[in-house]
Amino acid sequence: MKANTIITISRQYGSLGREIGKELSERLGIPYYDRELISLAAKKSGFSEELFDQLDRRATNSFLYSLTMFGSAGLNGLSLTDQLYVTQRNIIREVASQGSCVIVGRCADYILRKEPDIFHFFIKAPMAARLAHAKDDPKIPDATKETIEKLDKQRAAYYNFYTGQVWGHAANYDMCLDSDRLGVSKAVDMMIDFIETAQAKEAE
Amino acid sequence: MKANTIITISRQYGSLGREIGKELSERLGIPYYDRELISLAAKKSGFSEELFDQLDRRATNSFLYSLTMFGSAGLNGLSLTDQLYVTQRNIIREVASQGSCVIVGRCADYILRKEPDIFHFFIKAPMAARLAHAKDDPKIPDATKETIEKLDKQRAAYYNFYTGQVWGHAANYDMCLDSDRLGVSKAVDMMIDFIETAQAKEAE
Repeated sequence: MKANTIITISRQYGSLGREIGKELSERLGIPYYDRELISLAAKKSGFSEELFDQLDRRATNSFLYSLTMFGSAGLNGLSLTDQLYVTQRNIIREVASQGSCVIVGRCADYILRKEPDIFHFFIKAPMAARLAHAKDDPKIPDATKETIEKLDKQRAAYYNFYTGQVWGHAANYDMCLDSDRLGVSKAVDMMIDFIETAQAKEAE
Repeated sequence: MKANTIITISRQYGSLGREIGKELSERLGIPYYDRELISLAAKKSGFSEELFDQLDRRATNSFLYSLTMFGSAGLNGLSLTDQLYVTQRNIIREVASQGSCVIVGRCADYILRKEPDIFHFFIKAPMAARLAHAKDDPKIPDATKETIEKLDKQRAAYYNFYTGQVWGHAANYDMCLDSDRLGVSKAVDMMIDFIETAQAKEAE
């Protein structure tokens, strides 16, 4: 794989996108950023991790609620929600500038869309599989189809608001995979295969 | 590959989805249906191929225009557009019941969603590649970005109207691929890899 290869992963809730991202980063020997971005953003900005968490964990605090709650403009003319987004965006740009990495979620595909050597993946799975995986998430006990659909709606609303694109539309990604039919390891195999093929083709 | 494996392919205009579908069917040694469905539907129904063509080739006759033009209900309570859709739907179900095949477009993924052993793929490519491929299509000389976007909008409107789903959303497909970064043959390799992996996993 080329140096400075950036990989973004977007995923439906419960689709094992995080597990796939972690295994991908381990097998490629490159850093993995997910919740790590929150710690970095908090350290950099002075805002607390809890505040980013609230923006990020839209299970209990929906994005639209956040907009209302944090919607009033601060001293610099940006609402608190926007300030948190801009802080995360700057952190994402910074980690991407440091070399190859895997970044999960947080509109990274859009934020880094002009980078060369970037790959955008989307992971999905059928509802039955996502419900089964949700049972392992201590933050969402007793998840139902409705809970999961709400989480995805909130992810989509956040993404669509900041990017003007449709979250989950195939046009925005290099490859989208159903993790349930493949399993985690095979999905990672196919992502590596995709990256190696594309980089070899570009080098021709 | 298992007997009775049905493969549907949806694709952005100019993304080489048709070429990929053809190569896939040849390498798997199974029938390929695209325009073939129109001839079959015409033979079966008594409607002319030209009429289906008009429904299908929404380059010059937009779907919404067709709805207006053909929108008044016929003797059996269905508009002409709906009658053409229902005829195509029945043909798609019939060819799928005859064994393994590749079907391109025409809402086949939605029509056959309840079949076992079915795989849904979506092919996309960046606009620059699609523009380059459009130059080879004699039906659309001098295609521009706007022409291509309009063709996709019409495909999406037709699909969304008859399926209630979002055309091109990753949630509806097993795998979506960017054909430009892979090339036709490698995209076909990956589709075969996906099918064989999923069928082996199901058999475990």
